Amino acid sequence: MNTIGQYLRLTTFGESHGPAMGGVLDGMPSRVNIDIDSIQKELERRAPGKGGATSPRKEPDKLEILSGISADGLTLGSSIGFIIRNCDARAKEYSELIDCFRPNHADYTYYTKYGIHDFRGGGRSSARETVSWVAAGAIVRQWLSEYGIEVKAKYIRTADVQKAVQTGDSAGGAVECVITGLQAGIGEPVFGKLHSRLAAAMMGINAAKAFEYGDGMASAQMYGSECQDIPFVGEDGKVRFRSNHSGGIQGGISNGMPVNFKVYFKPTPTIPQTVETIDVEGNEVSITPAGRHDACVAIRAVPVVEAMALLTVGDLLIVSNRL
Amino acid sequence: MNTIGQYLRLTTFGESHGPAMGGVLDGMPSRVNIDIDSIQKELERRAPGKGGATSPRKEPDKLEILSGISADGLTLGSSIGFIIRNCDARAKEYSELIDCFRPNHADYTYYTKYGIHDFRGGGRSSARETVSWVAAGAIVRQWLSEYGIEVKAKYIRTADVQKAVQTGDSAGGAVECVITGLQAGIGEPVFGKLHSRLAAAMMGINAAKAFEYGDGMASAQMYGSECQDIPFVGEDGKVRFRSNHSGGIQGGISNGMPVNFKVYFKPTPTIPQTVETIDVEGNEVSITPAGRHDACVAIRAVPVVEAMALLTVGDLLIVSNRL
Amino acid sequence: MNTIGQYLRLTTFGESHGPAMGGVLDGMPSRVNIDIDSIQKELERRAPGKGGATSPRKEPDKLEILSGISADGLTLGSSIGFIIRNCDARAKEYSELIDCFRPNHADYTYYTKYGIHDFRGGGRSSARETVSWVAAGAIVRQWLSEYGIEVKAKYIRTADVQKAVQTGDSAGGAVECVITGLQAGIGEPVFGKLHSRLAAAMMGINAAKAFEYGDGMASAQMYGSECQDIPFVGEDGKVRFRSNHSGGIQGGISNGMPVNFKVYFKPTPTIPQTVETIDVEGNEVSITPAGRHDACVAIRAVPVVEAMALLTVGDLLIVSNRL
Amino acid sequence: MNTIGQYLRLTTFGESHGPAMGGVLDGMPSRVNIDIDSIQKELERRAPGKGGATSPRKEPDKLEILSGISADGLTLGSSIGFIIRNCDARAKEYSELIDCFRPNHADYTYYTKYGIHDFRGGGRSSARETVSWVAAGAIVRQWLSEYGIEVKAKYIRTADVQKAVQTGDSAGGAVECVITGLQAGIGEPVFGKLHSRLAAAMMGINAAKAFEYGDGMASAQMYGSECQDIPFVGEDGKVRFRSNHSGGIQGGISNGMPVNFKVYFKPTPTIPQTVETIDVEGNEVSITPAGRHDACVAIRAVPVVEAMALLTVGDLLIVSNRL
Repeated sequence: MNTIGQYLRLTTFGESHGPAMGGVLDGMPSRVNIDIDSIQKELERRAPGKGGATSPRKEPDKLEILSGISADGLTLGSSIGFIIRNCDARAKEYSELIDCFRPNHADYTYYTKYGIHDFRGGGRSSARETVSWVAAGAIVRQWLSEYGIEVKAKYIRTADVQKAVQTGDSAGGAVECVITGLQAGIGEPVFGKLHSRLAAAMMGINAAKAFEYGDGMASAQMYGSECQDIPFVGEDGKVRFRSNHSGGIQGGISNGMPVNFKVYFKPTPTIPQTVETIDVEGNEVSITPAGRHDACVAIRAVPVVEAMALLTVGDLLIVSNRL
Repeated sequence: MNTIGQYLRLTTFGESHGPAMGGVLDGMPSRVNIDIDSIQKELERRAPGKGGATSPRKEPDKLEILSGISADGLTLGSSIGFIIRNCDARAKEYSELIDCFRPNHADYTYYTKYGIHDFRGGGRSSARETVSWVAAGAIVRQWLSEYGIEVKAKYIRTADVQKAVQTGDSAGGAVECVITGLQAGIGEPVFGKLHSRLAAAMMGINAAKAFEYGDGMASAQMYGSECQDIPFVGEDGKVRFRSNHSGGIQGGISNGMPVNFKVYFKPTPTIPQTVETIDVEGNEVSITPAGRHDACVAIRAVPVVEAMALLTVGDLLIVSNRL
Repeated sequence: MNTIGQYLRLTTFGESHGPAMGGVLDGMPSRVNIDIDSIQKELERRAPGKGGATSPRKEPDKLEILSGISADGLTLGSSIGFIIRNCDARAKEYSELIDCFRPNHADYTYYTKYGIHDFRGGGRSSARETVSWVAAGAIVRQWLSEYGIEVKAKYIRTADVQKAVQTGDSAGGAVECVITGLQAGIGEPVFGKLHSRLAAAMMGINAAKAFEYGDGMASAQMYGSECQDIPFVGEDGKVRFRSNHSGGIQGGISNGMPVNFKVYFKPTPTIPQTVETIDVEGNEVSITPAGRHDACVAIRAVPVVEAMALLTVGDLLIVSNRL
Repeated sequence: MNTIGQYLRLTTFGESHGPAMGGVLDGMPSRVNIDIDSIQKELERRAPGKGGATSPRKEPDKLEILSGISADGLTLGSSIGFIIRNCDARAKEYSELIDCFRPNHADYTYYTKYGIHDFRGGGRSSARETVSWVAAGAIVRQWLSEYGIEVKAKYIRTADVQKAVQTGDSAGGAVECVITGLQAGIGEPVFGKLHSRLAAAMMGINAAKAFEYGDGMASAQMYGSECQDIPFVGEDGKVRFRSNHSGGIQGGISNGMPVNFKVYFKPTPTIPQTVETIDVEGNEVSITPAGRHDACVAIRAVPVVEAMALLTVGDLLIVSNRL
């Protein structure tokens, strides 16, 4: 479905080749100050065309807020509707590919699911979708910063992107994210664990292939005596831990330490090289994709990872809020 | 919360030291044949005490089905309620630890969240909870096998468990899982991707620290030209792929190839060694946990991973409206 | 589905002729004092056999709480699982009716939906189901009374029940309910209005046919100038209204006045008189139902209406709770 | 919250005095033919200004579809985003009322809930909101008509509207609705009963005060022997009933007969007469509302009742997995 969150919920819509992308952010508290320019700046962080590593597609990505925020920038407590027009949807450029399934892309699976092969730009599977997530995340960020909660991600280089650009190839990558200022007690036991919710959100990002938090995958090679986080009471009377193997989460609930996790991305599936595939009738064909694509999706994923973390934490903050 | 799934939903309850564990499985179709003995056998697969690596705690784990299945083993279409009594809850054994927070366990976070320190056996954070998941998964397994869908997991040795047992330590581990027979088209775009739902389910398992599917984390070090899954039409007229870097999922939707993923587990947090910690009043104390615990949770997690995969696939099969 | 509520959620199970009824109440705050005897007393209020008007069926309805409440009666914040065994399920008494659809009952519709005709006692459509609702409501009542919120319903006589009993017939009836002590601001705009949620809950009760709140149906015959609720500030500085045409709800949100509503019930569908119907193969048959049934369901519905109101208000109180 | 439905879900946004109203309809099947002109015609049915009984406000209500429907009018299976600009929001006209709570309106309750008094036109509580419901309902109508399901409502005169218009008053009214062509087996037991879902949807409509189905409130005055719906097998081999006291629903599930229900509306709360009230600081004031309002909301509610019935039936049709 097109909704994420239980109480703070984002519902999105839009095809990359249609008139607009957009979303409805529901559940935001009233009377939060929102600076629209800050949202716009986040959209620019996400925009492509910054360095050869990313797609040269030109998207102005002008946000239009339609409800939920007053003229003087105060949330009303009502659902926040917004749209971003698609100014640069050159569907024709993709026309050669019509009726062919691009390998490693969602073309074939969407076709089996919906019986429609209308993929110009990827439909709902395009990374263009993330523009709505970043817009919503930027609103949530301003609310959470009132509580001292900050979310900061960075790109981790795991493959040689410049080499990929030069050879008409693409490259994988990773993003590390840290959430600071989150109080202890956030997250739900059993099926709503903080890291479970983060994993679901991150694995929803295009091209994400793996998620880990704290010591993550390395934990599997460790012994129990090596990864104990010993608690103590600091001089300010607050509980802290001498280490953070747990990544700030124990039993699915935040323990007051920084929450950290990593997301691993595969290389962009569509590259400007001739590749074998089949068309909708099952004929074997060769195609040479010509559309504009990022060489490394992980680079542009940085603000997207932050946005999804913000939405997840904001939701759990409300859900975990007790009477 | 204590519910997982959108349409096929499992709601669970029970503290490890209370009278019973149990659950309600809602959304199962009517007229599915259920063999109760098969469920019981799955509970035995999960039971501890098999080899030095796992806890010697003796749990008979006798399943009692209270509704939703007729006397002759046919689902009625109504919610399936079931309980498993806790016969062996030796709360006294834990009494030494009362008022202390065990490091790396959920004791401290539960206390900050609920204001109650009633951890004997871990409350809802105990791995005993998974007995209800395995029971529900065993019901779903019999339904999915009617469609030729099979889920099979296995333990991957990543650390020396026998060494850990001998030194009074614990060890991490991993579990690999493969889903076969799943038709193309299962999974939802955007926020309900098949791998996103699998990640959330797996990260809900006690001690899980990382999730990857297909090429997973290794994808981040690859180039796009190295990981293309080329489709072709087989002699039977069905679409297949020449490789499976995608792990059977493209754009969040199954492509008809086997779905495979791995879950990585940290070592059991509680080990029989003296450790520094604090009590509920913030005093520094030393404790030596005496309870019975598995040396490697990954070994017992195998049927739990299968159960969570079965619940996830069963839910998406209904949501994707493909029956 | 078998779940009601968004945050405070009750999930139920059980067939009236099966081993037990039960439920899971999830979302209750921790550290609420629960008196188990009070719950048991509510179950006795609901029990049949009190006067000729209700079914002579003897149900001890002994509640067994399996989780979520500590031995000393304090909620743990975890899901509260409970069961009530069915001691008196005389399925044989219904045997004559096997394979026949009782008129006005759910027999035919369940058959079309599930393909199973296993109606002894009505399966999930039996009013026996409400025993779980009353148990859950009794828990919520103790929590809400901490906030000064009280829910009180009463039977409104609309047809001559004693006459119906004497002639082997059944009679309709109504229940009025008042919620006092509810603060202003509870309920959600648009699709989660307080009266919308109350209507849904009440119409879920067996045999309910109509719902109204405040001036209700009579409003349709009124003019705007006749039904204004004028606000004023009381001597205690609190806002009150000079009348309560609104039934304590304006725009779907409580205004601090008593919330009042009525539910209208049809006569018990099954009466001990010979009636024409068809069997599962479509043959016309005459049946004379022999089971034990209430002459007027509205009388026994009083504690059920209260329970559903308590669950609804409890849920909205949490949902409406803002940071 | 601002979402209705479980699988077919409508999420809405927009303040009546803001730039636009809009919604996201998620869960529509792919490949359904949608005629945009038909949607526009439904919006015109709902528009005010038709006869003295309704508000003279001029709203062009031009629908703009942003996603989910292809250029040639075929649903894509993705979420359908749409907006309707507010061209005629004369906020100034309401300026006199700023800081005063209009009696019987949501002004006071919204203020207690959100701490904001920004009511020009009613914010989210304005009937303008229903424009999005009618747009979504018109899409669903075209899908359901493929299955022979039709929804038709009509206004029932219960008070003298023309008299109300002449005296500067408003009048209550009722709407009757019939759903034909709905197969047996739609609706869910226990908490998702068809009439429970209809009641919730109808009570969400502005000014709705009562809901009844089948014999409704009159049932409470009847005896069981008077309201039996006897089933028989018609010449075409289909099961029918000799009467329809049940309103087409038994045990919460459709029985194949027409589903009928009524909704009762109070008079428009805001009338152009001087009335006592208080302002946000608690001072007693007199106000004379000058905005444009319908004399009888029930008249304009006819297409809104249809839209909510269409959304409810469409959702349950998918949930009941009958397509």
